[in-house]
Amino acid sequence: MSAGVVAGIKSFSTSGDPMIDVIRGTADGADLSYDGEHYRLADVRLLPPIVQPSKNILCIGKNYLEHAAEFARSGFDSSTNNQTDVIPDAPIIFSKAPCTMVGAHENIAPPWGITQKVDYEGELGVVIGKAGRSIASRDAYAHVWGYTVINDVTARDLQSAHKQWLLGKSIDTFCPIGPWIVSADEVEPENLELQCWVNGELRQSANTRDLIFDIPAIIASISASMSLSPGDIIATGTPAGVGIGFDPPKFLQPGDKVRIAIGGLGALENTVV
Amino acid sequence: MSAGVVAGIKSFSTSGDPMIDVIRGTADGADLSYDGEHYRLADVRLLPPIVQPSKNILCIGKNYLEHAAEFARSGFDSSTNNQTDVIPDAPIIFSKAPCTMVGAHENIAPPWGITQKVDYEGELGVVIGKAGRSIASRDAYAHVWGYTVINDVTARDLQSAHKQWLLGKSIDTFCPIGPWIVSADEVEPENLELQCWVNGELRQSANTRDLIFDIPAIIASISASMSLSPGDIIATGTPAGVGIGFDPPKFLQPGDKVRIAIGGLGALENTVV
Repeated sequence: MSAGVVAGIKSFSTSGDPMIDVIRGTADGADLSYDGEHYRLADVRLLPPIVQPSKNILCIGKNYLEHAAEFARSGFDSSTNNQTDVIPDAPIIFSKAPCTMVGAHENIAPPWGITQKVDYEGELGVVIGKAGRSIASRDAYAHVWGYTVINDVTARDLQSAHKQWLLGKSIDTFCPIGPWIVSADEVEPENLELQCWVNGELRQSANTRDLIFDIPAIIASISASMSLSPGDIIATGTPAGVGIGFDPPKFLQPGDKVRIAIGGLGALENTVV
Repeated sequence: MSAGVVAGIKSFSTSGDPMIDVIRGTADGADLSYDGEHYRLADVRLLPPIVQPSKNILCIGKNYLEHAAEFARSGFDSSTNNQTDVIPDAPIIFSKAPCTMVGAHENIAPPWGITQKVDYEGELGVVIGKAGRSIASRDAYAHVWGYTVINDVTARDLQSAHKQWLLGKSIDTFCPIGPWIVSADEVEPENLELQCWVNGELRQSANTRDLIFDIPAIIASISASMSLSPGDIIATGTPAGVGIGFDPPKFLQPGDKVRIAIGGLGALENTVV
């Protein structure tokens, strides 16, 4: 079932982040059936399905081959000295602060005084269920509770100027996420079509089978360093077709509408203001 | 007063992270007097003074001149292409996941199977009180609740291999912090002596007056991107004398004791296991 709709219902929870309480209670595969009140989708405002994860949203850089090449060509990549090491030997992992998250139809509000190079990145999001450390690749999917859609919005000028990517990735409203989380039993994560449009123009179109580091490899690599907790979120990387992939680059402007859809997971549609 | 001692007392709080509740309630400078139960320091185990901040611990890279030079020489710096841009034009900001934090006397437990190049970094930690976004430098200190001591333990091999520094910085137990938070009214943050010893050998000795980007500049730069919340933690950068500053490098080994003291703030002493 699609469980994200309960995320905004405070009474479902006894404390803290309500969706994380749901995840904790069902991380071992308990029944997700829900006997509380129901609402029509049109009558609610969708919040981010998780509001306060235990750590920043974990993100994978340069995880589709064609995107790795377009990013290297763009001149904005502070992580590489040249164009010969386009494909990373180890996953590049950075983060976005939780204060960046907004719901599926909320606005992206760049601080135009400090950035003029705002870009979109459509990505498959993985939501952790069962906690773990040093998780082996073969066990990784047992720690996944579900999947969602993420727009890893990025200020390319800040990403480059500050060397480490955190600031350019962690601007408030720069992580549209949702519209909900679909539980893992209903998703075939290695064969999902991902598409991203800006003002109706198709910019990104890919399949998650083309990830360089797949979901088990990502979970193994991250959890070798740090403990993963219920409700932690991993953005698995974006395919080719981001704004800096064009010549000249196509950066986002006020009024632009970015729509990201992943087969079976729904769509985000956020307006830049 | 020194307030960190209340952090472990659950009954002081009504919900969530007890120290953050204290900070929220006193962010505008309310009296910190405490009429609850008192404990002898010898009778308690010190936890990290904050356990669950709203976002990863924010950290500043290469923020003392001599350290920036030693890091560039070491060959482990994936953020620079050469040795001519040793001093960053803009603050380099990265993060450590909250699951890295341990108390002032707990162990540092590297996963020796994936890293053999573990290093220490003594740093002044800033704890945010009043929430804010786009904070001007001149207003920055009004958002600081207090100060603490941080050891930004780093796996140099992972920091370099993954390009972005998050994984090499975010290993569980790699952020000793404390022993407590000293409220801002008792601290002169721009004139603090910081010293770090390994097994009694003095390795780092500096004064916070030598920060390249000072505390107001750091808070202005971070909050231009992201909202800061009560209890958020900023590690202001480490001075020269880390393990990779020596030739050959002096990495940490099992049994090593790292002691970091900052004038008026107390000392951390953690054993590597």
